Amino acid sequence: IYAGVEQMARKYGYHVVVAASNYQYDTEHQEVDRMVSQGCKAIVMYPIIRNRQQLKEDYLKKEYRDIAITLIDMAFEEQKRSQVIFDNYTAGYDMTMLLAKAKCSRIAFMDYNTPDCYYMHRSLIDRRQGYKNALGDMGLPCNSDDYLLIQRPAAQSITESVISAMPAIFEQWKNNAYFPVGLVCMDDSAAMTVIRIANECGIKVPEELKIVGFDNLKSAASFIPAFPTTEVNFARASAIAAEMAIKEATGKQNNTSVYMLQAPVTRVKALSLKAVKTR
Amino acid sequence: IYAGVEQMARKYGYHVVVAASNYQYDTEHQEVDRMVSQGCKAIVMYPIIRNRQQLKEDYLKKEYRDIAITLIDMAFEEQKRSQVIFDNYTAGYDMTMLLAKAKCSRIAFMDYNTPDCYYMHRSLIDRRQGYKNALGDMGLPCNSDDYLLIQRPAAQSITESVISAMPAIFEQWKNNAYFPVGLVCMDDSAAMTVIRIANECGIKVPEELKIVGFDNLKSAASFIPAFPTTEVNFARASAIAAEMAIKEATGKQNNTSVYMLQAPVTRVKALSLKAVKTR
Repeated sequence: IYAGVEQMARKYGYHVVVAASNYQYDTEHQEVDRMVSQGCKAIVMYPIIRNRQQLKEDYLKKEYRDIAITLIDMAFEEQKRSQVIFDNYTAGYDMTMLLAKAKCSRIAFMDYNTPDCYYMHRSLIDRRQGYKNALGDMGLPCNSDDYLLIQRPAAQSITESVISAMPAIFEQWKNNAYFPVGLVCMDDSAAMTVIRIANECGIKVPEELKIVGFDNLKSAASFIPAFPTTEVNFARASAIAAEMAIKEATGKQNNTSVYMLQAPVTRVKALSLKAVKTR
Repeated sequence: IYAGVEQMARKYGYHVVVAASNYQYDTEHQEVDRMVSQGCKAIVMYPIIRNRQQLKEDYLKKEYRDIAITLIDMAFEEQKRSQVIFDNYTAGYDMTMLLAKAKCSRIAFMDYNTPDCYYMHRSLIDRRQGYKNALGDMGLPCNSDDYLLIQRPAAQSITESVISAMPAIFEQWKNNAYFPVGLVCMDDSAAMTVIRIANECGIKVPEELKIVGFDNLKSAASFIPAFPTTEVNFARASAIAAEMAIKEATGKQNNTSVYMLQAPVTRVKALSLKAVKTR
């Protein structure tokens, strides 16, 4: 993200000040406050994921309304800020279609959340809608059983939560002749963890279970077996967000706008058995 | 466009009423009036191209301010309506860069307009700015001669106007050792017409002149020689526009917003001579 912001700041002759929110809503708020008091007129932000209450009372809605704050990826319209987001609805739709066309007759979707505190994860909300619509368009069942909601206690990492939850789910699937044969994971990181656990449970990927991820993580690029993922260009997103923020701060752009970047599916061939066997 | 609107109307439980403007500003106005009097609260519109005077006095600015009208593609900010548009600036920039990288040392841009009545074609205005900036960034000449403005009398189709204008331009180019070797056409339809005329004039495409189009028309998909174009997802654009209109009509969204979708370049390989020769 920094690279894109730096590029635009250089182009327009601005300096860049950096701060990290450490995944804390209050820290994010404090850092914005500090930046504004230092004289920043334009801020590009990758917002931390808010829970319902935080989003409802979001400081971005009420405070710093004269500062051009543009949001990347994890943004909601109700924050009333210009945004650069990825088209995760289409990404979820396309991934589900890809599995359906690879003859997956039952497709599950993996999500996560923290018990008793609903976090609003923009990308997952959009992808899930795409998943549902793709199932509908293909005439495939949309069972509530196939929505795998991983419980993530506040003290645990997402990976730890996936490792805790998946073995029991896979054991259940093995006792059911009609278990899902396609699984849309949260991202590449979850996909790799899931593939490892599936292997340990004696479920062959991709022969018995086809997996797809998202976000084209570097660590997944050489993972075997390969699986489809989406390309997301964060440098491009942040360059656009920085340019929007500069234009708003200098009065060249008045209303808020949403720039939607594509997150196209890549590594599609990984789903064909043939491609896997020749490795 | 209809498909995307229908999808969202179904999701939110609305009916869809359809009307056509027949490329007439007055007809468009009348049809909006009819829809409003029939009780429509939300309208998704692909606006006809306005001339300067029409845009200045646009009925969309003053009338039906309590009706949620969202615009697709051919929209301007001054209409003060929510919009879903494609990033044609970047499309024009990327196409020009593509030609520059294919060793085109002089690149022309094709536009059209009606004599004595300047029409505001949003996509072409944006693409032309992208073309100019790309030439600048590559250090290529930006000659006014290379801006081909096709005169289109009101009674003529765009294709007819291209057919009328291009032979003389090509004959002129042939007498000039340094004629443009890259041409950014208005769209795929113009690109196909231009290639046909170039052939008739004895100019080889892509060996002597490289052509690019826009909008990924179905009729151009199997055209030989192939040429690069842009992907534009109108179904997605109209689904977003319909959802925006519904949210505005039901009070869930108050301010107007601009949604900008990517129009990424595709069929890039068509520009390499090697790919063409193997056909």
